[in-house]
Amino acid sequence: MPHRISVMLDACPNDLGAVDRNKLAECIAACFQCAQACTACVDACLGEDMVADLTTCIRTCPNCADICAATGNAVSRQTGTNAGITRAVLEACRQCETACKELLAALA
Amino acid sequence: MPHRISVMLDACPNDLGAVDRNKLAECIAACFQCAQACTACVDACLGEDMVADLTTCIRTCPNCADICAATGNAVSRQTGTNAGITRAVLEACRQCETACKELLAALA
Amino acid sequence: MPHRISVMLDACPNDLGAVDRNKLAECIAACFQCAQACTACVDACLGEDMVADLTTCIRTCPNCADICAATGNAVSRQTGTNAGITRAVLEACRQCETACKELLAALA
Amino acid sequence: MPHRISVMLDACPNDLGAVDRNKLAECIAACFQCAQACTACVDACLGEDMVADLTTCIRTCPNCADICAATGNAVSRQTGTNAGITRAVLEACRQCETACKELLAALA
Repeated sequence: MPHRISVMLDACPNDLGAVDRNKLAECIAACFQCAQACTACVDACLGEDMVADLTTCIRTCPNCADICAATGNAVSRQTGTNAGITRAVLEACRQCETACKELLAALA
Repeated sequence: MPHRISVMLDACPNDLGAVDRNKLAECIAACFQCAQACTACVDACLGEDMVADLTTCIRTCPNCADICAATGNAVSRQTGTNAGITRAVLEACRQCETACKELLAALA
Repeated sequence: MPHRISVMLDACPNDLGAVDRNKLAECIAACFQCAQACTACVDACLGEDMVADLTTCIRTCPNCADICAATGNAVSRQTGTNAGITRAVLEACRQCETACKELLAALA
Repeated sequence: MPHRISVMLDACPNDLGAVDRNKLAECIAACFQCAQACTACVDACLGEDMVADLTTCIRTCPNCADICAATGNAVSRQTGTNAGITRAVLEACRQCETACKELLAALA
């Protein structure tokens, strides 16, 4: 996926300033990979016999999916003037990462 | 819309603890109203003759729409254990509010 | 919600042609109400003791929520030239309605 | 991206029946790649001097992005019982493809 993202970034006439295009493409790809994995995780949880024990995960993952997708969209838009929005939504991603790590630790 | 949201909240067997159900329903409704208004704002901007002068607004609004929708979903899910995610995504909403106010001030 | 949607529609310089603005505002509002109700329904199901019996609903509702939100966005954009897209996504909504009715009938 | 999607598919206890897992993973990946490309396309259009001539593309692409993301989510959920929803949202994707091809042809 990063390759196709890079093709679009290179087609974009906006000046990206000091932003590293490779890192940006990887970041965008990671956002959508996380979103998809969270959505798939819910589906996998719902297939387990112990589904009643997995409701916290089933509730948390859609939040992570929504937030990661919104972040992937936000970083796909070269809105240089909205550093505040970008930073805030990336911080929300980090909170999702923390929540997912806690869920995994609780399962182990 | 808050009325229908309240009906669903009342149907939910989860204990909401100290959360004020009316305020929660208003918060959820406000998130989706903001999301829709931002999406409609882009469309209105694209209909203006001076569209070339409105590109910052056209770029910022979809971020706000995505973030407000993700927040409306997150607060619709009574995931009491993820205060960190909820707080972070609400802070992202606040950054959107700031960005929208700056855009409106620049237009006035 | 329809009132605020109408305010944005009236602010939009695009010619809506023969489209009834009140009906359009109601349609947009209904899309987001459905999306929110489906998201809230999943959360309510996850709070039930019989969660293992509700997995079909928990899996179907997020699809309906995503599709209704995408439709609400699409009809918020006055893209007169894409009748094909609008019709197809509205048909997807109708499939969601059918699926929800079947789920409700199975519960009754 | 398809590799990680496959890892999640293999972790899922649901029986996929006659569905080809590799094709499914490619389909899911393609949905999110399309969604991201459409979002990036809007941003690139907004950077062009001739932005006023690109408003149809700027309006159509967010619909395609929303619909492709909703479809990527729907096919990530192994909701075997909702063939009607899956078919309808895939048909909406096809309408997006047609619209994008017409836009590209008009630009050429």
